[in-house]
Formats: sequence, structure tokens, C-alpha cells
Amino acid sequence: MAIVLGPNQYGKAEVRVVAVDRSSPRHELVDLNVSSSLRGDFAAAHTDGDNAHVLTTDAQKNTVFALARDGVGSPEAFGLRLARHFAGSYDWITGARVAVESYGWERIAVGGQPHEHAFRRPGGEVRTAVVTADGDDVHVLAGLSDLVVLKTTGSEFRGFPRDRYTTLAETRDRVLATAVTARWRYTSAGLDWDATFAGVRTTLLETFAATHSLALQQTLYAMGEAVLERFGDVAEVRMSMPNRHHFLQDLSAYGLDNTPASGSPVVYHADDRPYGLIEGAVLRDDVPPAEVAWLGTPGFC
Amino acid sequence: MAIVLGPNQYGKAEVRVVAVDRSSPRHELVDLNVSSSLRGDFAAAHTDGDNAHVLTTDAQKNTVFALARDGVGSPEAFGLRLARHFAGSYDWITGARVAVESYGWERIAVGGQPHEHAFRRPGGEVRTAVVTADGDDVHVLAGLSDLVVLKTTGSEFRGFPRDRYTTLAETRDRVLATAVTARWRYTSAGLDWDATFAGVRTTLLETFAATHSLALQQTLYAMGEAVLERFGDVAEVRMSMPNRHHFLQDLSAYGLDNTPASGSPVVYHADDRPYGLIEGAVLRDDVPPAEVAWLGTPGFC
Amino acid sequence: MAIVLGPNQYGKAEVRVVAVDRSSPRHELVDLNVSSSLRGDFAAAHTDGDNAHVLTTDAQKNTVFALARDGVGSPEAFGLRLARHFAGSYDWITGARVAVESYGWERIAVGGQPHEHAFRRPGGEVRTAVVTADGDDVHVLAGLSDLVVLKTTGSEFRGFPRDRYTTLAETRDRVLATAVTARWRYTSAGLDWDATFAGVRTTLLETFAATHSLALQQTLYAMGEAVLERFGDVAEVRMSMPNRHHFLQDLSAYGLDNTPASGSPVVYHADDRPYGLIEGAVLRDDVPPAEVAWLGTPGFC
Amino acid sequence: MAIVLGPNQYGKAEVRVVAVDRSSPRHELVDLNVSSSLRGDFAAAHTDGDNAHVLTTDAQKNTVFALARDGVGSPEAFGLRLARHFAGSYDWITGARVAVESYGWERIAVGGQPHEHAFRRPGGEVRTAVVTADGDDVHVLAGLSDLVVLKTTGSEFRGFPRDRYTTLAETRDRVLATAVTARWRYTSAGLDWDATFAGVRTTLLETFAATHSLALQQTLYAMGEAVLERFGDVAEVRMSMPNRHHFLQDLSAYGLDNTPASGSPVVYHADDRPYGLIEGAVLRDDVPPAEVAWLGTPGFC
Repeated sequence: MAIVLGPNQYGKAEVRVVAVDRSSPRHELVDLNVSSSLRGDFAAAHTDGDNAHVLTTDAQKNTVFALARDGVGSPEAFGLRLARHFAGSYDWITGARVAVESYGWERIAVGGQPHEHAFRRPGGEVRTAVVTADGDDVHVLAGLSDLVVLKTTGSEFRGFPRDRYTTLAETRDRVLATAVTARWRYTSAGLDWDATFAGVRTTLLETFAATHSLALQQTLYAMGEAVLERFGDVAEVRMSMPNRHHFLQDLSAYGLDNTPASGSPVVYHADDRPYGLIEGAVLRDDVPPAEVAWLGTPGFC
Repeated sequence: MAIVLGPNQYGKAEVRVVAVDRSSPRHELVDLNVSSSLRGDFAAAHTDGDNAHVLTTDAQKNTVFALARDGVGSPEAFGLRLARHFAGSYDWITGARVAVESYGWERIAVGGQPHEHAFRRPGGEVRTAVVTADGDDVHVLAGLSDLVVLKTTGSEFRGFPRDRYTTLAETRDRVLATAVTARWRYTSAGLDWDATFAGVRTTLLETFAATHSLALQQTLYAMGEAVLERFGDVAEVRMSMPNRHHFLQDLSAYGLDNTPASGSPVVYHADDRPYGLIEGAVLRDDVPPAEVAWLGTPGFC
Repeated sequence: MAIVLGPNQYGKAEVRVVAVDRSSPRHELVDLNVSSSLRGDFAAAHTDGDNAHVLTTDAQKNTVFALARDGVGSPEAFGLRLARHFAGSYDWITGARVAVESYGWERIAVGGQPHEHAFRRPGGEVRTAVVTADGDDVHVLAGLSDLVVLKTTGSEFRGFPRDRYTTLAETRDRVLATAVTARWRYTSAGLDWDATFAGVRTTLLETFAATHSLALQQTLYAMGEAVLERFGDVAEVRMSMPNRHHFLQDLSAYGLDNTPASGSPVVYHADDRPYGLIEGAVLRDDVPPAEVAWLGTPGFC
Repeated sequence: MAIVLGPNQYGKAEVRVVAVDRSSPRHELVDLNVSSSLRGDFAAAHTDGDNAHVLTTDAQKNTVFALARDGVGSPEAFGLRLARHFAGSYDWITGARVAVESYGWERIAVGGQPHEHAFRRPGGEVRTAVVTADGDDVHVLAGLSDLVVLKTTGSEFRGFPRDRYTTLAETRDRVLATAVTARWRYTSAGLDWDATFAGVRTTLLETFAATHSLALQQTLYAMGEAVLERFGDVAEVRMSMPNRHHFLQDLSAYGLDNTPASGSPVVYHADDRPYGLIEGAVLRDDVPPAEVAWLGTPGFC
């Protein structure tokens, strides 16, 4: 028996780079949070404290800023440039993972016109990209997180088994709310990243809205399936969807009902914890898997 | 010398009430976080553990849900109903403070049409209202928090004094970014709350965008002044604006410049801490002050 | 009518300074988060963008580091040095507020012996100090936040009034849990800050534990009273105590009871929101008030 | 080509169960955050909204409370009972993952004596357990997160390669700070969980303190190696260690030095972002891997 080093990676996390294109009076703004991790032969650093192979995390940070100066583009494109740069920088670096969060900004309207250099950040939802260079291969995951959605009707939950601890009543009409985290893997490294992202996002939203839900699992699957049907360059979709419970408030103790039939609003309590958590993947069965693309990406399964 | 009870209040914080108007197929959704505090004679509870005056915080929570059943309306209107209810419920309850956070939801577009019962919550910015009943008086503060805005130019910072510890360079062109928290006090309790809120918010945004900034203090003052000029029912505006620094990244060590003049984007590092913090009030000098309206409202000054 | 500037202040928030005394092999570590705010005549910056009076927040940050180099000591002592420095730096700066958070570190034990230069930070609870220089006066508030405490018995809640919305049952035995935020004002600027802080903290903890609670208000008052009885240099104590509800779980649907009498543990659900919030001050009636000491300190009342 | 369901799981997250043993006047307190996930044949729920196989997440929550009533014990033991219960509940449920966070409480000392029923929660560090039932197999991961540690000396960083973007100076003496997340896999399901956890934790702490660090990777490896050397029932250790940078503050602009040699404290700035992130596994090469034990556990590699 011997004690040995197992899988490992290291890098710089959460480099907050903001790039402003000022080539015309109408400025363009990109706001990113970039994390890089290197993979390869770093055994000596672990076992002997020998850093000859350790490209510093400080240099990784500097590289993010330096490459941003050449132009950033989409999160996927910037991740590809960085991942290829790192994976090709030394022969002992065999792979790199670059994760990008992208924060959207909208132009402030002044007198009805979008301002040239003043912006508002809506907050909440984040666009994500994870690019993995694995030797000469590259893999691109696009995604989003904290896409908070809710349906006030069109959601049932019935037909489940009842064990000793099952007390939940069946319902034909409930509020369904979740915060979607979704990531999807492309089979191409040369797409129109912004247009494809926008299309997938719209598909996720429209499918959530249009699906009459019998279970959050069903909604999740329908959303993934719709993406795969419409976007041939997507091989698989992985989603994590907390079920943010909205409980119908019982008002009977004060002589009030709380039924949808009446003219008054129906009153719910939005609960924090615990919450359901539904996680699943939807994929094409004819595309080779690529687990390396998902290494180190928090999530599920 | 005696030890005595000083100012005190108690209540239920963060009641998460969601009310859905289902009176037509096009549902309406209100999503609130309500906190109530009662003021009055609660001395015996403190000194003797005598709860005869303590309307339970559980009952306060129940009241929020019960009154929501009658319809919610704007945060200000709902706060007024609750504050008046609490302050009038027992003769030893002489005041009540009701703070409401309101979370906005947008309809999901499906095929270009707003969906009838599926919504997306943009997140980030929060609309706030604080209503204080003080005997028979009521005071209404409207507000917003986490309105994140940024200008890529049109901001200078020069002419400051230089003491021993001043090393900052003057600049005629910097990124200016902040997350506005603003609260304003109305002199009427019977406004069109939603329209006035929307108008004030637009004024804050437009003034931020349109003001050529020589100091964040100047921007803050201009924003408050514009609100007071356009809205006669606003007596004072209090604002807290962190200066979220975006530092020009020095790329010279790798042989790169980072000047606005070139065709490449200018690259900044968005810093977390420390940050500047600018806080101030703008007010009409002919309106009587109403400090009770601000009691317990976190902030400044 | 005129629109005028009201109260205002500005400064640098959250300067994270760590000072290590290496004068002997047994290092000493101080870990602080320092925020400064200046008060005085800054009108021209607001109304005209004239920064001639604006000591930059960058210089304020530099000052924190520079003065730390001379030795830090207790949070109160460091706050006093900084507040006096700022308030005395220019004649238009008439006041300064310095807020300090202090994070405790313990020595890691190796083979039962405290290590000379390796530390662990327990997290959670934070020691705080707020020093206000107001002209030639200084005021010192000591405090702590996030002191999380819980009693598994010795807490009742009975005798409260019952309005239409009161459904809560009375109880002679409940779990009482809270996260204490307390701040107390000293009448001297020359105490043994560390010893006094430790004594007040112990008094708060012991009183929480030893008081048979009939209401959280009673516990709060007893804690403040005990501090004032034992520490003659404390003029007032202000406390904010959320009532973190632990609800007895109803297990009857599965044929289980959940009574304290049985041999099995009693099972509770720790709830997040909503929570009660009890806020109050306990003070000596013969000490002049000093509201300026509390300006800008988030809290209550 | 077909679109198919891939890996999936669902459950209830963050059930906050507090169990109090009141069988003697000296109460014992257990405070847990429990999340369960079920694996098996849930395809029909996804593709057809058929919930016949979906043991509700509400029932999972109820089960946590019901089983707690029988006694909780260590996080690992409670996780084992729950995972075996769920995996054995229906023939289509082939696996279960139960993740437990355990929050420590200390007795409040009153007059030097530990109180019988009053407690303080130190906060910060969390003990974790993840138990996976996979058919008839069970796997136990113990762990901890947010163990924040720092060395004021005894840490170098030299000998790294210098590419175009490397500007970092070498150092023979730096502050080393991190927040350890560690998880280790046991090869037995019948250990003294509390004693073993305590032993591993002490080993991690002592090794961090005693290792003269040439790289954070070296420290990570030494910590894992020490655990494996001392605990024969541990097969592998996975660690994630952010490098929380403490930068020596440059005070030269104000005429101050900041060298360790002088009598004054050395002054550092604790930086938030970006941070280094070092992740790695240390393992025995003669133990069969068990990837199913790590499925769904956030982390690395």
C-alpha cells in the first residue's frame, strides 16, 4: 500500500474583469467573473513543494486581463481563448478549465432613448460558460443560473405513492416556482455563441411557461427536450431546479376562506427551507459522452 | 440613579406573502416581504415578564396574511392598512412601523405574447416602503435598494486636498458605479403610489445618467434635487451610495497599454472591498421634519 | 421654499487590515474590518462638485494602514486614534465616525501546546466598536454581533392578549434561541477596553443562561440591566434580538408523540423566516443622552 | 437519434432538525441540516408526469423528523439510517444520498460551570457527512467545511516558472490563510464516528500548523497524507483550499517601512477576490475506487 496523489487542479478564482469598448461614443460594456484551473503534472508541488511546474495563479489572473485587452466577445469565446492559452503554455499543463460568469447590463433610458454610456445591471440571473481544454480537445458548456420563474396555475401534483410518512394532499392546482440552473454542452466550438445562448434561454423560458406541469420532473425534462429538439449543436442539458414551495395559507381560524374561486386574491406563504430539489440530465443517445467537460462543475448527478 | 427601560419595539420580521389575483385568466402577482414593529407601553414585559400588553408576533404575522386576503395593492397602501390596524388595535399600542419589500415579476413572453400566468423575477433591485403610524399620524417612506448603475465615462474626480496619506491621482475620466439605496418621504398619505414610485425611479435613473459627475456627492445631490423639483409631494430624499471602484488595470508589465484612445477595450478590475460610501439627504427647507418616520430604518445620518 | 442639503457623511468602508506583531517568536494577530466616515462642511462637493474639502476615501484607507503600523491594540483604542486623527485633520472636518469589526483568532493546539504562529478563526460572533469624534468630544460604543445562543428549557410564553388573529397556544416550556446584537456606550474614553469587553460579554451570556424567561423582552432587559449593574462606566445598552423560532414538530400523523416526558429526544424544526424581532435599550436615567454617538449605527429605536 | 433521460435524482434539501435529549436535567442538543436525494427509476415522472414512483419530498422531510425521534447520534449514523431507510422503501428506489451538516453548540459557562440547558453556537466551521446507499452497499464520507486557518510565517513561495504574464515576486515568508473544506471516505460503516471525526480534524489542524509550507499544494498533500497514515479506515481525502491572499501593504509613500524586522506590527491587506483555489485528492493506491460515494457532492476533480 502506498499513499498517492489523486486528481488535482489549481487556479485563480473570481477575477472580476470589466472591459469597455470606447471605439465609438456608444460604449459597449462586458462584465465578467473568470475562474481558471490548470490540470497536468503538478505532483512535485504536492509531494516536495517543488513549484517548477506551477504557473502562478497570479499569472493566470494577469493573463485574463491581458487577453481581455485584445477584445472579449462572448463568455464562450473568451473562455476558449483562455483555456487554449493555458493548456498550450507548458508541456506539463495538459488541460485547463475556464469558468465565466457574465453579468448583463442594460442601457439606462433617458427621455426614451438608450444612453450611450450609462447602464443599469438588472441583477439576479447570470449567464455562465465553462470551457475545458483537454489536450487538443475543447469542450464548451453554456448555461445560466438563478433564472427565477413561477407559475400561478397550470401545475398539478398527484398520483404519488403513500408510505407511512406521506401526509401531503394531492393537488390539481398549485403555485410552481423555481430558480433554474441549466448547463448545456455544445458539440461545436465555432457557434454564434450569443445567438445560440439567447435561443436556448428563450426555449427554456417558453417551455416552462407553456408546459402544463404534472411534476417538476416533467417540466425539467420538457425544457431539456425542447432545447435538444431545436438546437442540433447541443448534445446534453443538465438542470438543477429547487422547488420553492408556496404554501396556500390557512386563514380559516380568522373566519376567512382562501379559495381561488372568490374575488379576493389567493394568499400564499413563500417558504425558504426546506425545499425540494430536482436534478436531471436530458441528452441525445447518439452523442459520445464527454465527462471531462463536466469535471469540477458544481451540480448534480 | 436608576436603571430604566429606554426606547423599544418588537414585531415579526420577514413575512413572505405572495398574493395572486385570479379573478380573470390573466393572473396578477404580488410578492412581498413584510416586517411589522409595534411601539407603545410594553414596560411590564421587559421588567416583569408580564405579557398582557404583548400582541404576539405570531398574531402580527397572521394579520399580514389576513389583510392580504382583502387585496394588497401597492406596498405603500398595504403598509398603511397594516400600520393603522396595529396602531389602533389596543390603547397601549401607540405606534407601528411596517416595512415592506416588494419583488417585481415580469410576464414570460411566449411567442412574443406575455403569458397569462407564468412569470420571471428579474432579481436585484427591490422596491421598499416604510409606513409609520405614530398615534393618529401616518408617515410614508417610499424607496428602492440595490439599483445598480454604472457610467463608463462622464465622471471626473479632481481638486481634492492632499494630506500626508493622499496618493490618489486626479482623473478626468473614470468609471463610476454604485448601488443606489434611496428613500423618500411623502407629505401625503393619499397618492397614486405606483405612478409616483415609477416617476421617482425614472428621475433617479435619468439624473444619474445625464449628470456629468465631478464627485459622487454631486451625483447624489443632483438625483435628490431632481426628485424634489419634479414631485411636490416629496419632502426629503435620503440616499446611500457605495462607490464601487473599477480600477484601470495596469498592463504595462506585459508590454500592453490600456488607454481609452486605442481601438481595444479598456480593461478594469471591479473591486469588492474596501469601497467608498457616500450618504446624504436632500430636502425642502419649508417642510417640518418628521424624524419618527425614519426611526428604525437602517441607513445613515 | 428651497431645496437644500441635509445631513451627510462619506468615507471608506470595510478596510480589511491584518496586523501581525512579530517582535517575538510567539506572534500576535489582529484582524479588523474598519470603516470611516467624515462629517463637516462638504456642501460644495454636493452642490458644485467642488472637492476642495473632500479628503479622499482612498486617503482614509491609507490612514488606516499607516496608523496600524504604529500598533493597533483594541478595536476601541484603534477607533479612537483614527477618529481623532480624522476629526483633527482639517478645520472643516468637524466629526468622524470609525466603525471596527474585530475577528477573533485562536492558536491551533499542536500536541496540546498553543502554536506560536498558526491560528484558527472560529467565525460567527464578531466584536464591534464604533467611535465618534464630535468636535472635541469622543464617544465609544463597544458591542458584539451574531452571538448565537439557545436554551432548551427555562422559557415560557403566556398571558398575552388574544385578538381576532391570535392563534398561538400558551407554553410553559419552549426552546428560546436568538442571535444577540448588543452595543453599549461608555462614559469614559480611557478604560481597559479588552477586559471590560470580556466582562460585559460574560455578563450577557451568563444572564441569558440564568434568567428564567417569561418573554424575550424580559431576557433582553435582564441582560442590559446586569451589564449596567456591574459596569459603572456603561451608560446604556441597546440590543436587537431576533426570536429564532424552534417549533415542536408534530409527529402524530405517523403515530409518534413528541413529548418531553419520554426517553426519546424532543424534535424541533428550526425555522428561518419569519422571525420575531425584539429591540430595546436599557439605560441609566442620570446620564445625559448622546445621540451623536449612535448616528449612522444600524439598529433600532 | 433519440432524446433520452440521463442521470437524475430528487429529494428534499435543508431540513433543519434540532433534537434535544431531555432524559436528564443536563440536556443534550443536536442541530442538523439534512438533505436527501433518491435515485432509481423515475423515468415516467419525467417523460409522462406519472408520479407513481415519486416518494414525495414532503414524505422525505417527515421521515427525517420521525427517525430523529428515535435518537439521532452522529451525523454519519443518522445519515446511514436515513439512506438505508430510503433505499429500502420501494423496489424502484435503488439508491439514496443523505447529506448532513452538523452545527456545534457549546454549553454557556455560568460561574465557571457549564450550564445544563443553555448553549452558544460558535458558528463558522461545519461538520459534514454524506452517506450514499447504492443498492445494498453503503458509503460514508465524513468532512468539514469552513475551517479557517492562517499562519503568520512558515510559508514560502518560490521556484515557479515565469512566463510573459508572471510578475509575482518570490517570497520566503508570507502569510498563508485558507478555509479548508475536506471530505474523507471511510472503508467501514461501523466506526466510532465522533471519535474518528475528532481525530481526523485534529490531524488536519496540527499538520497545517506544523508543516513548513513551500506551496499550498504541499500543505494540502501533507494534511491528506497525515490523515491516511493515522487512520486506517480512511481510503481517500479530497480537499478544496482557497488561498486567501494577505498582501503586505506598501507604506513607503507615507515614509513608512513595513518590514518584519522592526518592532511595529507588520501590516497586511486581506483581499477578497480573486483568490487562489487549490483542490486535490490524496488516496491509498490499494483501495478500490468508489465514485458513487462522491456523486452529487459539490467539490472538485
